[in-house]
Amino acid sequence: MFVRNCWYVAAWGSEIGRLALLRRILLGEPVVLYRRTDGRVVGLEDRCCHRHAPLSAGRVRGDNVECGYHGFTYDPSGRCIRIPAQETIPPNARVRSYPVVERHRLAWIWMGEPGAADESLIEDFHWLDDPAWRFQGERLSLEGNYLLLVENLCDLTHLPFVHSSSLGGTAITPENGQSRREGNAVTVERWAENVPAPSYFRAIAGFSREARVDRWMHLVFTPPAFVRLDIGAAEAGSGARKGDRSRAVTTRNLNAITPETERRSHYFWAQAQNFGLDDPSIAELDFRMTHGAFLEDMKMIAGQQANLDLAPDAPRVNIATDSAGVQARRVVEALIAAEQAGKPQRLSPLPLTP
Amino acid sequence: MFVRNCWYVAAWGSEIGRLALLRRILLGEPVVLYRRTDGRVVGLEDRCCHRHAPLSAGRVRGDNVECGYHGFTYDPSGRCIRIPAQETIPPNARVRSYPVVERHRLAWIWMGEPGAADESLIEDFHWLDDPAWRFQGERLSLEGNYLLLVENLCDLTHLPFVHSSSLGGTAITPENGQSRREGNAVTVERWAENVPAPSYFRAIAGFSREARVDRWMHLVFTPPAFVRLDIGAAEAGSGARKGDRSRAVTTRNLNAITPETERRSHYFWAQAQNFGLDDPSIAELDFRMTHGAFLEDMKMIAGQQANLDLAPDAPRVNIATDSAGVQARRVVEALIAAEQAGKPQRLSPLPLTP
Amino acid sequence: MFVRNCWYVAAWGSEIGRLALLRRILLGEPVVLYRRTDGRVVGLEDRCCHRHAPLSAGRVRGDNVECGYHGFTYDPSGRCIRIPAQETIPPNARVRSYPVVERHRLAWIWMGEPGAADESLIEDFHWLDDPAWRFQGERLSLEGNYLLLVENLCDLTHLPFVHSSSLGGTAITPENGQSRREGNAVTVERWAENVPAPSYFRAIAGFSREARVDRWMHLVFTPPAFVRLDIGAAEAGSGARKGDRSRAVTTRNLNAITPETERRSHYFWAQAQNFGLDDPSIAELDFRMTHGAFLEDMKMIAGQQANLDLAPDAPRVNIATDSAGVQARRVVEALIAAEQAGKPQRLSPLPLTP
Repeated sequence: MFVRNCWYVAAWGSEIGRLALLRRILLGEPVVLYRRTDGRVVGLEDRCCHRHAPLSAGRVRGDNVECGYHGFTYDPSGRCIRIPAQETIPPNARVRSYPVVERHRLAWIWMGEPGAADESLIEDFHWLDDPAWRFQGERLSLEGNYLLLVENLCDLTHLPFVHSSSLGGTAITPENGQSRREGNAVTVERWAENVPAPSYFRAIAGFSREARVDRWMHLVFTPPAFVRLDIGAAEAGSGARKGDRSRAVTTRNLNAITPETERRSHYFWAQAQNFGLDDPSIAELDFRMTHGAFLEDMKMIAGQQANLDLAPDAPRVNIATDSAGVQARRVVEALIAAEQAGKPQRLSPLPLTP
Repeated sequence: MFVRNCWYVAAWGSEIGRLALLRRILLGEPVVLYRRTDGRVVGLEDRCCHRHAPLSAGRVRGDNVECGYHGFTYDPSGRCIRIPAQETIPPNARVRSYPVVERHRLAWIWMGEPGAADESLIEDFHWLDDPAWRFQGERLSLEGNYLLLVENLCDLTHLPFVHSSSLGGTAITPENGQSRREGNAVTVERWAENVPAPSYFRAIAGFSREARVDRWMHLVFTPPAFVRLDIGAAEAGSGARKGDRSRAVTTRNLNAITPETERRSHYFWAQAQNFGLDDPSIAELDFRMTHGAFLEDMKMIAGQQANLDLAPDAPRVNIATDSAGVQARRVVEALIAAEQAGKPQRLSPLPLTP
Repeated sequence: MFVRNCWYVAAWGSEIGRLALLRRILLGEPVVLYRRTDGRVVGLEDRCCHRHAPLSAGRVRGDNVECGYHGFTYDPSGRCIRIPAQETIPPNARVRSYPVVERHRLAWIWMGEPGAADESLIEDFHWLDDPAWRFQGERLSLEGNYLLLVENLCDLTHLPFVHSSSLGGTAITPENGQSRREGNAVTVERWAENVPAPSYFRAIAGFSREARVDRWMHLVFTPPAFVRLDIGAAEAGSGARKGDRSRAVTTRNLNAITPETERRSHYFWAQAQNFGLDDPSIAELDFRMTHGAFLEDMKMIAGQQANLDLAPDAPRVNIATDSAGVQARRVVEALIAAEQAGKPQRLSPLPLTP
């Protein structure tokens, strides 16, 4: 079961063509994505109401999609507006239309009650189209339940183990008590002051090997499955912790995870920087380092999923540093329970450091 | 669930060797097919009663089949007649024997109560061994429930969509009210008079581009899954509709579908002509055009099945032109219900235009 | 369901490295195998208690294994002794530890109540490390339930059929009444006196084509799935049946089968000889002949399993020569029932001819 009354990322905008139809399984449901003539993205149930054919095997006709089987044509609202073989259109001839909004280069889809879809609830990923920022991102196919990845992202303690040869040295020693629940969000604030510049920042921001820095990694989880991090380093003592980032470099690690099924997920993520905008090699390097590390995570998660497949209800032991992940999971479980009880909650986005 | 008390096509005769054993899953049951010394086809449960080994992994011995595991030997009635390791043969040592009849180059199998198997109930596919006709056919493996294909064949309205680049232009505009239920059969009579000769007939029968013709496509569905079409064109006004086919060319499109499981099917089909018998290129061309179109259908049906796998009970909206397919499905459902109630119906074949 | 309170073979000792971690599914449970610094084999649940990650994706640290996800470190008893992210270790932080004993070049694992693990109950496979013997063995992956293979090994009557081109001529004509249940073991004693030397013994032991021999094949099944055979031939009349093996050559065929799941198995087997120890080609030839035959068996068993997948409860007809296999199956079923009833039986090994 999934939270339904919320925005998920369905695709990168660049994945959705004007005439090509994109089929994607989201929350176990087949969805077809395409663009209207004005470029706006449409998301429809990818199953013709007539004979269940995937609309994605059909054709875009103007703003509409024509089923490739018998030509049933649906407008963006999901209403069937043409049945070539007959004049009359039965009133129940329609497919589900999902509210879709393209924002920050991502196509956001509302899988719940359409009337409740409120664009102001879309999570903030503005770094993906802010001229002050450069980014590089991708979609990965995860062989695992989406919450396994949320837990992974909420947690820094795995870095020295999963990423011993990549990001291993970049973690900030976790300190307890820093994860905080704010409504349905979970935040973690992490600081390390007057420490050597880690290799990650030396690589992308040119700190010298001798440099000492104040570092931070701030995390915001918002349900159902967004994890955004503000990662930075500033010259030690230059006042970053007090808010002065004039001597700092920062990146944003931005993650949106959408369940495909209970055991597979679509993983959309990007890495953004607000420095070196004239040097594309920085975004490239930052992306590649993170990409390599995420593949390590995905392999570990696939291993977890294989064990879950063998024993879905094996117990788990939590420790203090799991607190962010555990709280995130509880938030999601509570939201699902509320929806099942017929009382869906309104999810508010929570800004990360801009 | 399937209709059991009826004849299905198990194989093309040419697929069944004298000594090679053919394993085939039919209606979810393993069946082994081979030939006696006199050439008659035998169909046995492909599961030795002793240790469940597939008999198809064994050897043909005279008219009998010897299990490749311990040599249990079964005669064509399914009775075990030899157990190499002991003298006595337990009375329950037998496998199920399915009545099989080879007719019209097809091997027909009766999956129900053997005593009820009546050869006169075998559907008419005489065009496959009538010297006045030439044909070419094949077996395809369909990734979908057999009734999806029945619906596909009962319906012309998909031609401009699925076959836009192949048979798209060959359809006769469907008119309502022409499908008729006759007992357990469903027939559709379709006529178009004084119309240009379609490319299909120009290609195989040499009509000129200017020619005007009277055309027909008559369909007969008989359960569980036979669809036969009489397709033809005659010089316009030459009296074809009144029965004078002296100026006509006709083909037969002949389809027999056998469930492998609920989601896979064996698809036997052929295309036959009664003209140009001395020119093998005509049969070849007719076959290839239809073959290409059928692959398009099969891809669409696999897409439907993928959606059914996600949501088996999603509702369907029917339209007027679905009437033949809907009636066909109802016939099958009623037959299954009757069998489940212990009252199997006797299915009679229904001739198509000879 | 499986018998749990008994020793199974988890791996060949040579499969288990000092630092490499071996994941293996046994009885449906994930197990990781590695060696301590002193070389002793450890078998732990391959699922970290924290987040279910496979420990096999981690690292060996001294005698312990460190999870590759967050560094939870387990000692060979399964107790978590280190959690890098925090000082305190929750008392329930542990994974299951399986008693493992390496003996006769095999790693034996106890899947039941650890307190009941008694090394004296390990089955006798001493031929695998007895200097008077030479052997060659392997692990095969069987696509079938383990009891199908037990039945196969308990039975000689399949040789002329499954192995017609390999071992077919080597079988001793089965005689009834020779299989005997001794406690939980099943034994079969088979003799053929004053018969031609079969090709198998001519090939590996150099009997001439004219030689006449007294032959035997003695089998011992012990649960859950060990089948060992003493196979030999002696100069006819030289007294082998009375116990004088001075003119005999003998081999041992040694089989240990461990369920992976209900429909897949790990098959460990070896062939040992006590003659020609200075000629490695004999062990090689004996191994290759048997290996080829076992592949034939495994193909047949995969066919049985395919039929079982279609109809798990299809009835079976037993014959007299099945008696050893049927008794073996009954032994296993009774042991499972006893465990289910909370009264696990103590299984004693039964020696085969040394």
